[in-house]
Amino acid sequence: MTNEKIPYKIYLEEKEIPKQWYNVRADMKNKPAPLLNPGTLKPMTFEELRGVFCDELVRQELNDTDAWIDIPEEIQQFYKMYRPAPLIRAYCLEEKLKTPAKIYYKFEGNNTSGSHKLNSAIAQAYYAKQQGLKGVTTETGAGQWGTALSMACSYFDLDCRVYMVKVSYEQKPFRREVMRTYGAQVTPSPSDTTEVGRKILQEHPGTSGSLGCAISEAVEAATTREGYRYVLGSVLNQVLLHQSVIGLETKAALDKYGVVPDIIIGCAGGGSNLGGLISPFMGEVLRGEKQYRFIAVEPASCPSFTRGKFAYDFCDTGMVCPLAKMYTLGSNFIPSANHAGGLRYHGMSSTLSQLYADGYMEARSVEQTAVFAAAEQFARVEGILPAPESSHAIRVAIDEALKCKETGEEKTIVFGLTGTGYFDMVAYEKFHNGEMNDYIPTDEDLQQGFDRIPQVF
Amino acid sequence: MTNEKIPYKIYLEEKEIPKQWYNVRADMKNKPAPLLNPGTLKPMTFEELRGVFCDELVRQELNDTDAWIDIPEEIQQFYKMYRPAPLIRAYCLEEKLKTPAKIYYKFEGNNTSGSHKLNSAIAQAYYAKQQGLKGVTTETGAGQWGTALSMACSYFDLDCRVYMVKVSYEQKPFRREVMRTYGAQVTPSPSDTTEVGRKILQEHPGTSGSLGCAISEAVEAATTREGYRYVLGSVLNQVLLHQSVIGLETKAALDKYGVVPDIIIGCAGGGSNLGGLISPFMGEVLRGEKQYRFIAVEPASCPSFTRGKFAYDFCDTGMVCPLAKMYTLGSNFIPSANHAGGLRYHGMSSTLSQLYADGYMEARSVEQTAVFAAAEQFARVEGILPAPESSHAIRVAIDEALKCKETGEEKTIVFGLTGTGYFDMVAYEKFHNGEMNDYIPTDEDLQQGFDRIPQVF
Repeated sequence: MTNEKIPYKIYLEEKEIPKQWYNVRADMKNKPAPLLNPGTLKPMTFEELRGVFCDELVRQELNDTDAWIDIPEEIQQFYKMYRPAPLIRAYCLEEKLKTPAKIYYKFEGNNTSGSHKLNSAIAQAYYAKQQGLKGVTTETGAGQWGTALSMACSYFDLDCRVYMVKVSYEQKPFRREVMRTYGAQVTPSPSDTTEVGRKILQEHPGTSGSLGCAISEAVEAATTREGYRYVLGSVLNQVLLHQSVIGLETKAALDKYGVVPDIIIGCAGGGSNLGGLISPFMGEVLRGEKQYRFIAVEPASCPSFTRGKFAYDFCDTGMVCPLAKMYTLGSNFIPSANHAGGLRYHGMSSTLSQLYADGYMEARSVEQTAVFAAAEQFARVEGILPAPESSHAIRVAIDEALKCKETGEEKTIVFGLTGTGYFDMVAYEKFHNGEMNDYIPTDEDLQQGFDRIPQVF
Repeated sequence: MTNEKIPYKIYLEEKEIPKQWYNVRADMKNKPAPLLNPGTLKPMTFEELRGVFCDELVRQELNDTDAWIDIPEEIQQFYKMYRPAPLIRAYCLEEKLKTPAKIYYKFEGNNTSGSHKLNSAIAQAYYAKQQGLKGVTTETGAGQWGTALSMACSYFDLDCRVYMVKVSYEQKPFRREVMRTYGAQVTPSPSDTTEVGRKILQEHPGTSGSLGCAISEAVEAATTREGYRYVLGSVLNQVLLHQSVIGLETKAALDKYGVVPDIIIGCAGGGSNLGGLISPFMGEVLRGEKQYRFIAVEPASCPSFTRGKFAYDFCDTGMVCPLAKMYTLGSNFIPSANHAGGLRYHGMSSTLSQLYADGYMEARSVEQTAVFAAAEQFARVEGILPAPESSHAIRVAIDEALKCKETGEEKTIVFGLTGTGYFDMVAYEKFHNGEMNDYIPTDEDLQQGFDRIPQVF
């Protein structure tokens, strides 16, 4: 049943945890377009950005030339608490599917935040502490980023204020308590605690919120309070940089056993996991050393890559943030109450957007019930209860493995299992009870969002 | 900050996962007393027990002579999905406490059941499948055992029926959905689906249930249905046998780095985790090779060891099960709605009871708010959100480490971190809101339970 040479779980040794992050932008010929000041339409400068983000994080955000950035010792220490994360050979899933494909997944759920988000949270909290700040503000969708940031802030004794997308706040009542356990203050968004929140509530009473709204509130809360900065769990270049530990460990584990992947799959909301997972492999492709297929998987209800426009747009609904060039559905796009809260973002990482535009990546959108069917199938054979977000990648990994079954090809498939679904049981319950719908926006729905994209080139 | 030689997490290699379970009874001079037939008061025979349990499990239950039992290949394969479990050096907790003590914990929460329970669930499901049964019935308190059994049954395609203690069913609504994800049927207990359940409901309307009630219902459901057997997640000798993988891995990991523990601490409900954790160490003590201090930690609200009687008693409230000699609070003892659902059992493993009676172990009872304070302190520095059950062990580990701080002793403390608290956020919320009480039964409360203990010697 098993190949004796490759264990079920490949654990690197502690000393093999990366000591540097890899910055894929350094190897890109077409760099991701810079953030623009919405007033002047000129690239945001260090001075402009430092009012919102910590200084060192701004430097990382703007750095598209250094391929390797040292990971500070304190962050390395923290990584040792929950890393290296295992790369797991899905022997049981392969057997169940009767596929000749070899399936591996990088499991990032073995920490209390339940996801990969902790990799960047601890970095951002560290730099905030280094700068002598009192605290940070942020938004959270599924609650994984908020939990991760709470843990990181608790470790460095920083104040942490989280704006949580209202639909997730309501669907995941216990997420709030986890964040409180780590000392964070959690507010459902949109809220009446910020000017932008009050405005959104007035325009869209009864809205279930979106990441775009929550970002606006968190930015306002940071910039109107002394000693605070805003931090973000995805989309930004700095986040993809920190998340490169996922890909670096994955590559090191595969290299150890001489395994070369054919297809690398990740779910994509803002791009933090996908970008982190693929970055060292993408680097090889960009340098002309190797060839891989990369597949980004997004919900059909929020299809930024597959149906969005590649254009400069606001990162937030309130239009208080800079403009980023990305695949976008428009900053006022509020997706249906899709359960994968972490994938409900209207935009996409600029870095991944550029790579997609340049033909280095594929993208696929999948429907919710098919995602939960894959999640349940996976849970029953592999034991791990996956997060809905992660299950988007599982869906496509299974689909690709089934194609191999038809063709007889022994492809090697690697996907990112970003986290666990312990706080997503309301969604699983709906799935079990046949109450889950597969809402897909119409072209008219999308046009409303596109109409709001500013005309910038 | 860290000792270079010992990593944060000690992972054994896959090939180092135990291939045999260790049966501590083989090394005990005073064997645990046999189960008695409540009618004849004679030891239960293989023939009598096989109506309730699978044949092979009955053999294991009665075997107090073989020190080592081979782990079947199929179970070893399953263990590879989530084992070896890490032994973690609590560097961050040590630093926070400023203690010279060295603290290690064996973390069994890195699987979807959220606890060590899976170690025995997969063994019991395997033997049921081998015997050609259709399914199994069981009870669950906190829901961890029920989840573990659901996972194991799903893996071997067995029907799984779970009676869940009503207080946990209500406090942990999402546990039910996890079990359903793995295909189990879950009923809150006491229920009107069994004769014994209806009787208990009539006598105690509005009862929040107990493990003792749920056991009665599950046994009835198994013995009145063809092709079914009853399985149990704790208390029994067979369960302690399977759980010896915890202790064996712990010992192998410590041996690898030449670490010798002074104190070994585990929470104790029915004894499955504590028994499994300490067994190989206890074996050394019983054979006169080593000396260790063992501490069992139980809730002050359900103090079997510290305030119970060592006597033959029924294992269940409905008095349908055999009699076991154990520390007991009486089979009608229904603890207050303590949140550590997994520790709400009136009795205790016969094996551990005998060892405690013979002076090989200490026991300590701790109050609920002190337990949650320890849990939160631990979560904030070690990152892992612990289950309330496990947090009983954390409380005493911290207490012992603080004693070392006073005396300056560099003791090595090992404790079992049995699982995670993701489904216990109602309890954490009560703790955060200051609504948690520290109910301790009075002597009169306990006397009611003692009055029901049958007069058997």
